[in-house]
Amino acid sequence: MISSAYWDRAFAEAEAASARGEVPVGAVVVGPEGQILAAAGNRTEEWADASAHAELIALRAAAEALGSPRLTGCDLYVTLEPCPMCAGAISHFRLRRVYFAAYDPKGGAVEHGARLFDQPTCLHRPEVYGGFREREAAEMLRRFFALRR
Amino acid sequence: MISSAYWDRAFAEAEAASARGEVPVGAVVVGPEGQILAAAGNRTEEWADASAHAELIALRAAAEALGSPRLTGCDLYVTLEPCPMCAGAISHFRLRRVYFAAYDPKGGAVEHGARLFDQPTCLHRPEVYGGFREREAAEMLRRFFALRR
Repeated sequence: MISSAYWDRAFAEAEAASARGEVPVGAVVVGPEGQILAAAGNRTEEWADASAHAELIALRAAAEALGSPRLTGCDLYVTLEPCPMCAGAISHFRLRRVYFAAYDPKGGAVEHGARLFDQPTCLHRPEVYGGFREREAAEMLRRFFALRR
Repeated sequence: MISSAYWDRAFAEAEAASARGEVPVGAVVVGPEGQILAAAGNRTEEWADASAHAELIALRAAAEALGSPRLTGCDLYVTLEPCPMCAGAISHFRLRRVYFAAYDPKGGAVEHGARLFDQPTCLHRPEVYGGFREREAAEMLRRFFALRR
């Protein structure tokens, strides 16, 4: 499977989140053989759970699918730069690579803010690639917030 | 209820985690009226979930108990300085105060490492108090790791 299929799925999860009234963020965890292990969108409102970000839900589901707390050789595709909570979880789950779409100067903790993976105390640093389909992801978020203000 | 009862519960959760073969960390969420809303210990091995830290489990359970993703006016008691993932979750859940026991220079993200709550991009900063029953908490962790090395 080529990566555009992962992105299509991540964006579809984000659009589905938006339709539920959730901030449109979608995430996909891909296993070492290229199979999609888990995909999720934000559920913070629906689940009344402030930790129910797309990334954390997908990471936990992928670990459940593999029966292991370590996602060695797995990659994450997410439509927004991860926040500190999700970046911390990415380290704990030992992801191999993180691909994200829109940069998040206010809430991101990978290329902005705490830059968690660059901290000397960071125990596991994945490879990180940002800016994929960035305009599309940023536009999706702008549309969502424009409707609510 | 006085705070020593919260600490007793947090330490009991940590000791129970240790007995399950988990890193001994325990956490308690206390509601605005002083009632214990949730208490938990680490479950990362048992649940095969690298995000199953005591704090995150307790925060989610407290939100479920209240039916709200925001734990306004609630406090967290935890036997170890929170990591970046849990510190990020503490902000998302809008905790009022965080009390922790042992400092964690290697894995902590409150007084060490990323110092998440001191980042200019941090959206919600709780009051933080560290060092309660510090020696007891540090000794519990040392004992656990000494047995495994």
